[in-house]
Amino acid sequence: MDHLAHVSNLRSSQSQTQISHLALDIGGSLIKLVYFCRYDDSCRDDGDELRSQNDSLCSKSDNNQPVLEGRLHFAKFETSKINDCLDFLRSMKLCLGGSHDGTAPPSDKIFIKATGGGAYKFADLFKEKLGVSLDKEDEMECLVTGANFLLKAVHQEAFTYLDGQKEFVQIDPNDLYPYLLVNIGSGVSMIKVDGDGKFERVSGTSLGGGTFWGLGRLLTKCKNFDELLELSHQGNNRIVDMLVGDIYGGTDYAKIGLSSTTIASSFGKAISDSKELEDYQPEDVSRSLLRMISNNIGQISYLNALRFGLKRIFFAGFFIRGHAYTMDTISVAVNFWSKGEAKAMFLRHEGFLGALGAFMSYEKQCLDGLMVHKMQQKFPISASSAGDNIYCSLSSNSDENGSIECTVYGT
Amino acid sequence: MDHLAHVSNLRSSQSQTQISHLALDIGGSLIKLVYFCRYDDSCRDDGDELRSQNDSLCSKSDNNQPVLEGRLHFAKFETSKINDCLDFLRSMKLCLGGSHDGTAPPSDKIFIKATGGGAYKFADLFKEKLGVSLDKEDEMECLVTGANFLLKAVHQEAFTYLDGQKEFVQIDPNDLYPYLLVNIGSGVSMIKVDGDGKFERVSGTSLGGGTFWGLGRLLTKCKNFDELLELSHQGNNRIVDMLVGDIYGGTDYAKIGLSSTTIASSFGKAISDSKELEDYQPEDVSRSLLRMISNNIGQISYLNALRFGLKRIFFAGFFIRGHAYTMDTISVAVNFWSKGEAKAMFLRHEGFLGALGAFMSYEKQCLDGLMVHKMQQKFPISASSAGDNIYCSLSSNSDENGSIECTVYGT
Repeated sequence: MDHLAHVSNLRSSQSQTQISHLALDIGGSLIKLVYFCRYDDSCRDDGDELRSQNDSLCSKSDNNQPVLEGRLHFAKFETSKINDCLDFLRSMKLCLGGSHDGTAPPSDKIFIKATGGGAYKFADLFKEKLGVSLDKEDEMECLVTGANFLLKAVHQEAFTYLDGQKEFVQIDPNDLYPYLLVNIGSGVSMIKVDGDGKFERVSGTSLGGGTFWGLGRLLTKCKNFDELLELSHQGNNRIVDMLVGDIYGGTDYAKIGLSSTTIASSFGKAISDSKELEDYQPEDVSRSLLRMISNNIGQISYLNALRFGLKRIFFAGFFIRGHAYTMDTISVAVNFWSKGEAKAMFLRHEGFLGALGAFMSYEKQCLDGLMVHKMQQKFPISASSAGDNIYCSLSSNSDENGSIECTVYGT
Repeated sequence: MDHLAHVSNLRSSQSQTQISHLALDIGGSLIKLVYFCRYDDSCRDDGDELRSQNDSLCSKSDNNQPVLEGRLHFAKFETSKINDCLDFLRSMKLCLGGSHDGTAPPSDKIFIKATGGGAYKFADLFKEKLGVSLDKEDEMECLVTGANFLLKAVHQEAFTYLDGQKEFVQIDPNDLYPYLLVNIGSGVSMIKVDGDGKFERVSGTSLGGGTFWGLGRLLTKCKNFDELLELSHQGNNRIVDMLVGDIYGGTDYAKIGLSSTTIASSFGKAISDSKELEDYQPEDVSRSLLRMISNNIGQISYLNALRFGLKRIFFAGFFIRGHAYTMDTISVAVNFWSKGEAKAMFLRHEGFLGALGAFMSYEKQCLDGLMVHKMQQKFPISASSAGDNIYCSLSSNSDENGSIECTVYGT
């Protein structure tokens, strides 16, 4: 979706609600936003300025009485078009709460929680253009906090994808750890997660979403990432890749388990003198590229999961975009290399882990020990629900970046 | 080197010698040849025809008397130009020995040992054009046989490469196993080697030499692999790759050990709208591509070595070509990911493992239990030298595909 259309949609949908809290994840390619819209109208509408408010996510109230009711919303912008993001922030009726140290901020000092490298790189720009300070949160910590929140709090968040079949996985919050979190942004981080705040970045690869889009731009005339991804649907990687059968004259190499259709060398057919770049169809190039990168990530992820005895691998990050062929390739790679031992899983809010983690950091104290019910179904996921304070559910008619219905209760 | 120049050089250097045995490794991109030139003139020179002879590598003779003295030579052709290879074979004074089952072949049936997928794919072509049958040997087995031969028999074969420094490694044939053999051809095979003939292909990746050359051809105007490789010398990958510092505004992400110059996303800067393919220098593209692929192979190799507790990783295959930056990148990758625990090593005859293995299969019986002396230095590598039958040394003035001086003794 074009981001301006997106912004316009957001505006109209927010006519009934007010943004109270917002967090940013500013990556190499994309800026991800998470913001909370209250159902009440405690934010006054007086123009385009960003204002802070003393209300926080978890101001004290009677137990079991909602403090806030509303929705978590998600948005994204290209980092190279950061001015669009600044315009969006400026034009929204933002009522920014949350302070640096939990106390009310001086009225002239507004903080937004932010993570990703851009929280450092663009700190001055935010100060200059919006008068807002970015309160920097560690990137890996935010990814893990965001993943743990989604996996424990949100119904129908994780799913497997094989042979075109999406299947939601019921996660038992008491049996979640350890797992491998693979976040595929411009580059790829692989994080072993052992609990809330307990994690280690064990590996990564520079062949990620930025590689797909960077190489893809150079090789095709595509104008944007989604167009390139879309193209891959119609492509045939066999035109570009060298298969085992191409080397073996149509037969396979059964002795070591390589079928004739196994890719022996990605882009290996392009070594031919007889064809130049313009002789290849962009859809074939896109598909080959997507398969190369997805398969490589799946393989390295599996090898790291194996190393630490992790059976579950969650793949997230904005590279995936719910794209069938990407998920299928990753799943097949994990399945192939692990001989069925390990399982690839995906997250509905794949792109927003970091931003969600930054969002959760507003009120760490208040959100600690989060155990969450599903709002719509009204039953506790966990038995130890006494201290719970956020109830969430996915909106039943959510779009691809589905908003999440949340109720914050007093502790 | 241009292959025709190569052939011409070979011809002139062979005026004194005769080819008696020859083996082929026909891969997806390259055909590799190994042939033995005798110092004597027992092969008659009567034209362009391939002829078989009854003499074999190990015909019986008195012990400790050389049966054959000569040199192993190496040559390569592009698989897409297989006719050049056929012409070369046809025009050489080949005296092909070796038979399918160890007995003298009928005079109308000539076999050449061959491995690689092309041994299957081009079998009919060899039959039709040269009247020669390709005697197919298993590809992985040949790679392992070739590697074991080189590591045990040839002086100054293995070396490390770090910070521009090449250092030969003295291999103790009694303490060689286990090791990981990584053969980087069009694609990459990773083989755990536990002994002579004892091995398992444990992994691989489709991002290999074919990917470098295939993508490189599409992205630059290079005419051949070596030109592309040469270009990378002058290139700067920072123009094309997205570094940690690019995301973090010049600072590093020290908390997780990522310096500002670490590549976060290969080709990640190419996502920028403001530059098209023609705006990038081919040398920068080449360097970025080389680094992406070398680093990826180093990482996956290390993860597989770790999995099986292998401390030594030997990298071979025609992708490397003794290229400094390639070896440096692989070495740094292995060193980085293993935190100094594992070591990357390279082989002087990197590209000819498969062909050498096929060559050795002529007289398996005879070559079994190979323990080798160095011809020139006249001292045994191994104490148990009683049964040795091939003495080899590198020619002191050998070129990049240095020929190997060999003496075959009777058993």
